[in-house]
Amino acid sequence: MRRLPFSSDYMEGAHPAVLDALVRTNMESTDGYGADPYTAAAEAAILRACGCPDGAVKFLIGGTQTNALVITCLLRPYQGVIAAESGHIAVHEAGAIEAGGHKVLTLPAQDGKITDEAIRGLAAAHYDNEVRDHMVQPGMVYLSQPTEFGTLYSRTELAAIHEVCKQYDLLLYVDGARLAYALGSDANDVSLQDLASLTDIFYIGGTKCGLLFGEAVVLPHRDLIPGFFTLIKQHGALLAKGRILGVQFGAMFGVDGVAPQPGVLLYEQLGKKVVDYAQRIRAKLIERGLPLYIDSPTNQIFCVYPDADLPTLGEKFNYGYMERYDTDHTVIRFCTSWATQEEDVAALLEIL
Amino acid sequence: MRRLPFSSDYMEGAHPAVLDALVRTNMESTDGYGADPYTAAAEAAILRACGCPDGAVKFLIGGTQTNALVITCLLRPYQGVIAAESGHIAVHEAGAIEAGGHKVLTLPAQDGKITDEAIRGLAAAHYDNEVRDHMVQPGMVYLSQPTEFGTLYSRTELAAIHEVCKQYDLLLYVDGARLAYALGSDANDVSLQDLASLTDIFYIGGTKCGLLFGEAVVLPHRDLIPGFFTLIKQHGALLAKGRILGVQFGAMFGVDGVAPQPGVLLYEQLGKKVVDYAQRIRAKLIERGLPLYIDSPTNQIFCVYPDADLPTLGEKFNYGYMERYDTDHTVIRFCTSWATQEEDVAALLEIL
Amino acid sequence: MRRLPFSSDYMEGAHPAVLDALVRTNMESTDGYGADPYTAAAEAAILRACGCPDGAVKFLIGGTQTNALVITCLLRPYQGVIAAESGHIAVHEAGAIEAGGHKVLTLPAQDGKITDEAIRGLAAAHYDNEVRDHMVQPGMVYLSQPTEFGTLYSRTELAAIHEVCKQYDLLLYVDGARLAYALGSDANDVSLQDLASLTDIFYIGGTKCGLLFGEAVVLPHRDLIPGFFTLIKQHGALLAKGRILGVQFGAMFGVDGVAPQPGVLLYEQLGKKVVDYAQRIRAKLIERGLPLYIDSPTNQIFCVYPDADLPTLGEKFNYGYMERYDTDHTVIRFCTSWATQEEDVAALLEIL
Amino acid sequence: MRRLPFSSDYMEGAHPAVLDALVRTNMESTDGYGADPYTAAAEAAILRACGCPDGAVKFLIGGTQTNALVITCLLRPYQGVIAAESGHIAVHEAGAIEAGGHKVLTLPAQDGKITDEAIRGLAAAHYDNEVRDHMVQPGMVYLSQPTEFGTLYSRTELAAIHEVCKQYDLLLYVDGARLAYALGSDANDVSLQDLASLTDIFYIGGTKCGLLFGEAVVLPHRDLIPGFFTLIKQHGALLAKGRILGVQFGAMFGVDGVAPQPGVLLYEQLGKKVVDYAQRIRAKLIERGLPLYIDSPTNQIFCVYPDADLPTLGEKFNYGYMERYDTDHTVIRFCTSWATQEEDVAALLEIL
Repeated sequence: MRRLPFSSDYMEGAHPAVLDALVRTNMESTDGYGADPYTAAAEAAILRACGCPDGAVKFLIGGTQTNALVITCLLRPYQGVIAAESGHIAVHEAGAIEAGGHKVLTLPAQDGKITDEAIRGLAAAHYDNEVRDHMVQPGMVYLSQPTEFGTLYSRTELAAIHEVCKQYDLLLYVDGARLAYALGSDANDVSLQDLASLTDIFYIGGTKCGLLFGEAVVLPHRDLIPGFFTLIKQHGALLAKGRILGVQFGAMFGVDGVAPQPGVLLYEQLGKKVVDYAQRIRAKLIERGLPLYIDSPTNQIFCVYPDADLPTLGEKFNYGYMERYDTDHTVIRFCTSWATQEEDVAALLEIL
Repeated sequence: MRRLPFSSDYMEGAHPAVLDALVRTNMESTDGYGADPYTAAAEAAILRACGCPDGAVKFLIGGTQTNALVITCLLRPYQGVIAAESGHIAVHEAGAIEAGGHKVLTLPAQDGKITDEAIRGLAAAHYDNEVRDHMVQPGMVYLSQPTEFGTLYSRTELAAIHEVCKQYDLLLYVDGARLAYALGSDANDVSLQDLASLTDIFYIGGTKCGLLFGEAVVLPHRDLIPGFFTLIKQHGALLAKGRILGVQFGAMFGVDGVAPQPGVLLYEQLGKKVVDYAQRIRAKLIERGLPLYIDSPTNQIFCVYPDADLPTLGEKFNYGYMERYDTDHTVIRFCTSWATQEEDVAALLEIL
Repeated sequence: MRRLPFSSDYMEGAHPAVLDALVRTNMESTDGYGADPYTAAAEAAILRACGCPDGAVKFLIGGTQTNALVITCLLRPYQGVIAAESGHIAVHEAGAIEAGGHKVLTLPAQDGKITDEAIRGLAAAHYDNEVRDHMVQPGMVYLSQPTEFGTLYSRTELAAIHEVCKQYDLLLYVDGARLAYALGSDANDVSLQDLASLTDIFYIGGTKCGLLFGEAVVLPHRDLIPGFFTLIKQHGALLAKGRILGVQFGAMFGVDGVAPQPGVLLYEQLGKKVVDYAQRIRAKLIERGLPLYIDSPTNQIFCVYPDADLPTLGEKFNYGYMERYDTDHTVIRFCTSWATQEEDVAALLEIL
Repeated sequence: MRRLPFSSDYMEGAHPAVLDALVRTNMESTDGYGADPYTAAAEAAILRACGCPDGAVKFLIGGTQTNALVITCLLRPYQGVIAAESGHIAVHEAGAIEAGGHKVLTLPAQDGKITDEAIRGLAAAHYDNEVRDHMVQPGMVYLSQPTEFGTLYSRTELAAIHEVCKQYDLLLYVDGARLAYALGSDANDVSLQDLASLTDIFYIGGTKCGLLFGEAVVLPHRDLIPGFFTLIKQHGALLAKGRILGVQFGAMFGVDGVAPQPGVLLYEQLGKKVVDYAQRIRAKLIERGLPLYIDSPTNQIFCVYPDADLPTLGEKFNYGYMERYDTDHTVIRFCTSWATQEEDVAALLEIL
């Protein structure tokens, strides 16, 4: 019997609107490597949504690829990137940042987040150190929005981090692998325009937000990375049929001819229901007295679950295993997505 | 007005059978990163087709990515890879091999091919050199089948290269970006089984042969690359929704449930018509007295075209610009693919 | 006025015996790149001293170079190296390990040391993790003997670490930048032979122990690193006049013709007096009630010094600044070396 | 019996003036890593000699290290370096440039040299290519002066190459491993000042020109490489006792206290006699009718030697084996250096 899918947000194919756009355009002939009208239109639509019409967008394939490429292209070889110790680049990318030559300078995280104060402390300590020239220089800050634990930076927090970055000449990069689920959260006050004005570069995640695959890297200033096209090619990140990315993001950002409704930003809308489902699960857990491991306002809910009840749960539901909590409890994750079905949520609420 | 598409074989989306398989499976929930049943079935089907059931297949996204990853994973850091000076890795991959730390040791090419004799000469000269320990050691041979010029290695040629590789402890790697169009050529006598028995590793190209994207790396001996999964992840080449690759290759290799006809190897069949179209173009060029730049038995036809006639041609047809030939002529390419239409070929034959 | 030198152990040139050997052999003509009789004799003498006649020795130039080269040559690209958070490779090598593609997996240190238990914990956690294939695999353990804080691993501790390394297939590498001062300490029970039998590779430091420069990498099993000579060249670590290293180490390891006394291991002897000087300083600090920051039995003494007294100290003595301790105190280092003069120590003891 | 040394210019230790300076300063205590007065004085003296007082000098250890470091620090990751196919970086550095991530873009060489026209052709072809963004961009030109075959670029040739570099935004880098032997040749018209005004960066070779080891990298504009000190450290190229390089170059460039005669540039003078010896050998070869393989005006003489006579020659003389010429002849090299003795030259002339 099929188990109802709550383990992650990349278990299905593409959102119907995205798949439909791919099907409808399938037999058209266009130039390769992103030199097609769909890619151009998607870029324009995203820049419009981000309020930075003079910027640039590059469409890449996956998150680890995007992180490694952006960080390697922007850091000088003697620099490292500051990240939360729980940051994706610090833990689950198989050493891709180091393979590109750079140290990840980790900071302790609170609910998956780091603070402007902690960043300032690290940077100040570096520049105060007499032997700093024998050490890796901090050159960039990496955040994820939402974080790996589903939590959110507020606009105020992001602005404060932006400030410390200016002070210490650090680039600010935001990993938006699940950005649609931040945009869909009532707790969120950081818009795409805010990201474009407060960061040097960020990416709008597609893989976990309804695309077959794909991430849109937004450069508010288009010349940020000289030779970026060639570097994308060199890193094996250039899709031959680049329009497949353009079509998918076009469907999400209201591009005429591929989007279900021209001008309507599906990407900004689809997260609302997804997050609502997750928050119902959260409410139920609290109601039942199951402690949250981390309190998340987005589509990932982490809780401390009695081991005794896991078999029953696992019989009908796929959930994410995180880590052992104590001898009798496990930290698990429930994750909703654009593909989550109302009736599956109801079934889960019932069993909890 | 739409120009008829003969410039390359990656201008459209996916073969209808492939797209159909994606659409039908779209809403199913499966585990990520290739741990799904479609990927497993596609791997099994490919290994069966290659006659190496104990091997392994890894599904990657694009050709440059595959070449860089395979070569970097297999060479030791003091080794380089032997390739034709016209080889894709030597010219059009933006230095990806060097970015991975390795020198491309180029040999002069004849019709895009290199010979066992030339390889033997290079290897022998290296080991005869008194200061060879100050030099890059040849560690691998890179071939493409068909080559970048559409030509083919015969089984005899491949076996001879296999021999010299054994003699000098060189790994043999074949880039099969357009392999379906070799398999579809009457001139070809190298089967998938031959590739599996004569090479250490090769890839079956999907991007140019009917998939949205995707390349299947075949390792006849499954333990050839320790830690390969982690290395794929590290290089940003691991698709989160890995099953998208499994489904597409499954459709091509007869996997029940995704292929149009279970057990039928569409990949081995679709090239025939494509090559036939190209050979009609070739015949017409010869008939008209237009010199072939290189004589190719597959889906790419290279000819020396009078500049004076290019505007007329370009009005109705997309063709590939290669290089200037002399003051009055240009080398151009006509390329057919699974998406080529009979009537478009007819229209082209008429104008030539 | 000259300030008496207690800040570090690389402030002077070479031990007189070493310099004398260089002067005496200066005008001889020998082959380059280490293919000279002095280098061969030094290698043989060191292997004899280490009790591993079938091993190999390679002479490199400096410590960071040696660490980066050894670690890069031995780790597979998906592996990282375990080290104390205070380890030289984790802090003061400008990201050389990451520049070579590898993550440093840090463990909390106690007096600059890590334990077999902590290593076991890290390795076990890695192999217990469900998503370990998305993470950097631990592949090696890096220790320094003495540590960066002058402390020593005992033979028992080293044997326990050797055990856990075997259990988890980790290579064990010891950085002996100041090894002569371990060998010269009464508290030490780890001999060169122990290092050769308990580690996979280690280096005997020359730069800080009486040479102009130079480190001798000992491979108890000579084939540990295929292509090592070429890799040394590639990393820019191959000295053209390689015999300069051979002559210097020959002088330290009793090679006939260059050593002051053939067969006498100056390297094992010169540390005794140096450590004795340092321990007199330590005793004086304790006597005066100045707290030790870390209690070291070798040539580096770390203490918490009142800021108020630093100007007086600094007027006559060079000492090492480490870090701020509290608002009124600083952690400083006194370091002795083969070049330390008895009367300078006396002067220091007086002022303390 | 000792064979007289004509095989290369790095078979002995240091020039007596250099060794003397090391001996006299041996027991002084100075700060490490180049922060000592000798290094500062040598830097100032070299900048004075080069006529670029606002530049910077960094002292490194060996040639391959210097080439790899300079090229990696200056190229962007999508760029390659143009060099003669016989250039040291293209052949004998064990792939160090590729290990740093960059392709060597080779040009055919005439007598070891490349021309401004050939460079222009390569650059123009790159920028004319429609798919140049898929290719490695030329970013730098590497020359050696003298070349690996002992030949020299004239001031006019160098100025023409400087011009084409400006035109195509290429950095110009000159490898001066044997620069003293260019400066000592009557045929040379390129001064240190010319190098400083016509190149972006070059190095003054010490290892082959009288030092134990060491190369002085001259940056006519001091801010050319941000973070250069840290990068030197990261590459393992930072000498702990940095003053050993400062003292040696100080002795060569007239620094008071270490040079035999303050203000006198020994480096500019010592080559004259060395080249004179080599030219006597050249004259004798011509006189005897032995064909020169390449006609060099510096300290390396390449000739085509009858195999039948090699045993006699080899009995008394060390010479350099280059390559087989034909079935009966071999290309060999006679190399003189600062250590060459008048009577040894006389003996060689006699036997030829």
